[in-house]
Amino acid sequence: MRHAIATLSLSGSLPEKLQAIAAAGFDGCELFETDLLSYPGRPDEIRRMAENLGLTIEIFQPFRDFEGVHPEQLERNLVRAEHKFDLMEQLGVELMLVCSNAQPDISGDPALVAEQLHRLAERAAARGLRVGFEALSWGTQINRYAQAWAAVEAADHPSLGLILDSYHTLALDDAISPITQLPGEKIFFLQLSDAPRESTRPPRYSRTLRSFPGLGEYDMTGFVAAVLKAGYAGPLSLEMFNDEFRAAPAGPTAMAARQSLLWLEERLQADVQLPSQAERPLFQPPRAPALNGFASLELAMPPVHRQAVEQLLGSLGLVEQGRHRRAPITRFAGQAFDVYLRETHDNAAVTVHSLGLACTDSQALLMRLEGYGQATRDDDDLGGRLLTTPAALALRIGPDANLDGRFESGQHPAPSDCRLSGVAFALPCGLLESESGVWRHLLGLPAASTGVRHESQGVVRRRCWQSTDGGGEIVLETSTHAGTSVGRALSPSAGLDQPATCVALRLEVDDVVATAQRLSAAGLAVEPVPANYYHDLAAHQALSERDRTLFQAHALRYERRGNRDYAFLQLTVPGNEHLMLEVGEYRTSEA
Amino acid sequence: MRHAIATLSLSGSLPEKLQAIAAAGFDGCELFETDLLSYPGRPDEIRRMAENLGLTIEIFQPFRDFEGVHPEQLERNLVRAEHKFDLMEQLGVELMLVCSNAQPDISGDPALVAEQLHRLAERAAARGLRVGFEALSWGTQINRYAQAWAAVEAADHPSLGLILDSYHTLALDDAISPITQLPGEKIFFLQLSDAPRESTRPPRYSRTLRSFPGLGEYDMTGFVAAVLKAGYAGPLSLEMFNDEFRAAPAGPTAMAARQSLLWLEERLQADVQLPSQAERPLFQPPRAPALNGFASLELAMPPVHRQAVEQLLGSLGLVEQGRHRRAPITRFAGQAFDVYLRETHDNAAVTVHSLGLACTDSQALLMRLEGYGQATRDDDDLGGRLLTTPAALALRIGPDANLDGRFESGQHPAPSDCRLSGVAFALPCGLLESESGVWRHLLGLPAASTGVRHESQGVVRRRCWQSTDGGGEIVLETSTHAGTSVGRALSPSAGLDQPATCVALRLEVDDVVATAQRLSAAGLAVEPVPANYYHDLAAHQALSERDRTLFQAHALRYERRGNRDYAFLQLTVPGNEHLMLEVGEYRTSEA
Repeated sequence: MRHAIATLSLSGSLPEKLQAIAAAGFDGCELFETDLLSYPGRPDEIRRMAENLGLTIEIFQPFRDFEGVHPEQLERNLVRAEHKFDLMEQLGVELMLVCSNAQPDISGDPALVAEQLHRLAERAAARGLRVGFEALSWGTQINRYAQAWAAVEAADHPSLGLILDSYHTLALDDAISPITQLPGEKIFFLQLSDAPRESTRPPRYSRTLRSFPGLGEYDMTGFVAAVLKAGYAGPLSLEMFNDEFRAAPAGPTAMAARQSLLWLEERLQADVQLPSQAERPLFQPPRAPALNGFASLELAMPPVHRQAVEQLLGSLGLVEQGRHRRAPITRFAGQAFDVYLRETHDNAAVTVHSLGLACTDSQALLMRLEGYGQATRDDDDLGGRLLTTPAALALRIGPDANLDGRFESGQHPAPSDCRLSGVAFALPCGLLESESGVWRHLLGLPAASTGVRHESQGVVRRRCWQSTDGGGEIVLETSTHAGTSVGRALSPSAGLDQPATCVALRLEVDDVVATAQRLSAAGLAVEPVPANYYHDLAAHQALSERDRTLFQAHALRYERRGNRDYAFLQLTVPGNEHLMLEVGEYRTSEA
Repeated sequence: MRHAIATLSLSGSLPEKLQAIAAAGFDGCELFETDLLSYPGRPDEIRRMAENLGLTIEIFQPFRDFEGVHPEQLERNLVRAEHKFDLMEQLGVELMLVCSNAQPDISGDPALVAEQLHRLAERAAARGLRVGFEALSWGTQINRYAQAWAAVEAADHPSLGLILDSYHTLALDDAISPITQLPGEKIFFLQLSDAPRESTRPPRYSRTLRSFPGLGEYDMTGFVAAVLKAGYAGPLSLEMFNDEFRAAPAGPTAMAARQSLLWLEERLQADVQLPSQAERPLFQPPRAPALNGFASLELAMPPVHRQAVEQLLGSLGLVEQGRHRRAPITRFAGQAFDVYLRETHDNAAVTVHSLGLACTDSQALLMRLEGYGQATRDDDDLGGRLLTTPAALALRIGPDANLDGRFESGQHPAPSDCRLSGVAFALPCGLLESESGVWRHLLGLPAASTGVRHESQGVVRRRCWQSTDGGGEIVLETSTHAGTSVGRALSPSAGLDQPATCVALRLEVDDVVATAQRLSAAGLAVEPVPANYYHDLAAHQALSERDRTLFQAHALRYERRGNRDYAFLQLTVPGNEHLMLEVGEYRTSEA
């Protein structure tokens, strides 16, 4: 299908937006008038710019507060429309979006509204243009698509049609199925955005909420399927009012936006069995293979921290498996994952250099990424392909058949019982949505859980994905507060150009108490836990007194995760005060 | 009246919070259990700390999910309560807040709930403690205060009472007047916070919303008056879940919080004619005098920018009135306000050093500030007193009788027609609420209007106050986006410790076209306005074609403000690329 995006969804100047939209592979855009008003050049320059970029300007939007007005106001509104028709001719745009009137004191008389829309359509038709009418969910008289359709039907003009918007429909919990009965050729345009369910009711100020399909809680596939079943043949167009997008670089947002529409097409076939048709073939990439947690963790380490890091790995039972024949990399083996220590002089801190995904079919995943237009590159040292995410994380895909051969053969002791079960990254503000697209759209994971964590100096927002087998968790965190763990891990002055950084690693071991003892013996300090914490555990009768005493002795915390007991300790990784290591053990509760 | 605040309303560690609460002059606090759980010391250390600071720990909160449960769960809940009673004894707290159960699958059977609350109250009474029951607006069965009161009444135990919270009551639009009929001695505690009306419905996730009385849209005086009329004699306590407060320094937040309660007492007398009673005298400061805009603007200016700044002032018709006899200050006179140019070597940029308030009775204002516990200090150079706001702005109060004598006498040409009609400051995130208290509470201005401005690189939130005579506007702006005008004006790496900075000055003149010509002649570049802007004005038939042509020739923008035409230009102040100057003129529309 054809894809478009509204310029209001991106940051920057109008030319910057058009360039980002074209670079992401969109076919067209919606031109938001406000973007034009701040552009210093002529409208026909925008037309040529779009043409040169291979973009169609699908629609000019919005034209507000038109219908249901007094006769004198109608005449003024028609004059205003003629000015905008002039502008559309200069822009080479054929369709205008008219949203329902949100002014107070307007009439909802169906005959009056129909007549006024008819007059507008006549004016448009005289110039070879068309008008699409959309119900704003906060429109004064018309706020549901059924009302907008009734007005369009009654106005009865071939140059007047309906525009549908998933946000306005789903924010009102409006019924989807009647859409299938609409005449498809009268649906002139389709605007899409997903959103969380906790929107304000009635919908009003919604500029921070709207996001890519799959990142909110609305039934996007059900909605779009209904529109396509009605016979709509136009583009899928993203119109996402979202303040974070306005602050994020336009390029990654546009790229993630395009991929979210491809994902939506994929889901239309998979979830609602919508058949792909010749006139509107749906995107069919290879299915996402199962993601079973993490296969490797590559740490970049300045030599000064070598000893402390190796002590840490040793305390976790990880034993050296050999040195890279060519690169300054040492390999350690855990249970079903490797740790690579890369000696580097580039960083002052110990950081996560790459994260290896454990997926069941790397070739299928790479073909899927190619279908999604997502570039990857070879890793010369460790093999496999690297995917660089919008926030500049390196994800490794695919084992290398010759991986063992890259390392000097030597001792190969049994791998440790240690498993990598979770990774958390801090993102600069504005990149959470785009970075989420990697996990939701490209890797095809189920919807994330969302939440916040309150720290003493501010709040951290987080999205959290479980790997297919439930054995690995990816957490993306962001915070506008400089004093939070996330704010401190990022450099506020570096802004959006800085890469995301790993702030937490979670390891699972078979015996966390033994691990705690080894850490202590190695002189590695575990984060202390206040005694008040254990008194509260006692109040909740959460553990036996024996376990509570044991836990307190080793500074272990306790949680119920799912239906299991989870005991864990935390410590700071040597060489990076912002990187927290959690080591835990699932325990069987005492009967 | 006595004043308290919940520790959850402030940032930092528990000792830091207690210190800030005491320093702001509160009598007591609500101890939020989460704050205790992360405190590494013993509960009795907190008790001694509070005692040494002169603070009463009024209440221990919250105890959750108690009532409406199965018998076995009730027994577990009672054991949990006993553990918390132990803790309260160590803390020296006598009252526990129990909020209504928010778990699914609980019973709302009134007899069961009453019996269970009675059992809890008996346990408390046996230890000389009391329990207050509060309806959470998102409680599963009990979410309105009338339900909570019915349960308390039915439970019928002297150690069980009701806790009221303005947020939970007003977020549900619950009726206030029945509160007056409650027996005052059974209202054990009163929690207060204001909030904007655009909260989610039903109330659920409300952690960014709650603020000081007077900064939201709820009827705080009506609510508190009803509670006091019922005979409540306990403290007024602020419980403000607000993510921004968690990121702001605790000191200014606590100070502004205390002043907001004093303001609330003042309004109780003024707005609802609540009589001050012997047992609970209400705060009665001198009334806020009228604020008629701004009396002076002091600019700090590095010598390198002297020439450009003086050219700017000259273009605005401001003429030098004399030099300070002692300090490196030059005085310029506008219409009803002075500009002071202070030569400084401290700054690289031209900045606003102080802003003089034009109030009708400076002595009354200074006495009012003293009543509010707000310090001021003398200005040795220009006279009057300076109020340093939470965001470190210097506001000048009071003309100095000897002001003229401080300047060399010389030429005194007629003052310019130029009036200072607006000032906008950029604030580091987290200080907007506290800084707002200066204008709302200390200076007693009517409620602000709030809004957002969408820029190409992000979003700016703003609060805006009109001076009493409507002739001056104060705008406070904040942005979490580094690329906005506000984000660029602040230094993101400096965090919350940096002072607010002036980002816009608005001047009104009698003839903006003439001013534009003088600016152009002086070589001072006005911000260009895209032609597309004027095409849009034409579409809206907003101006005569002649005016539109004139406006376009001088890069003037046009707005309707109130019912008047306003034409204005913008330019950057020489020596500060982040300080925008707007020069405008109210015009009479052509008939």
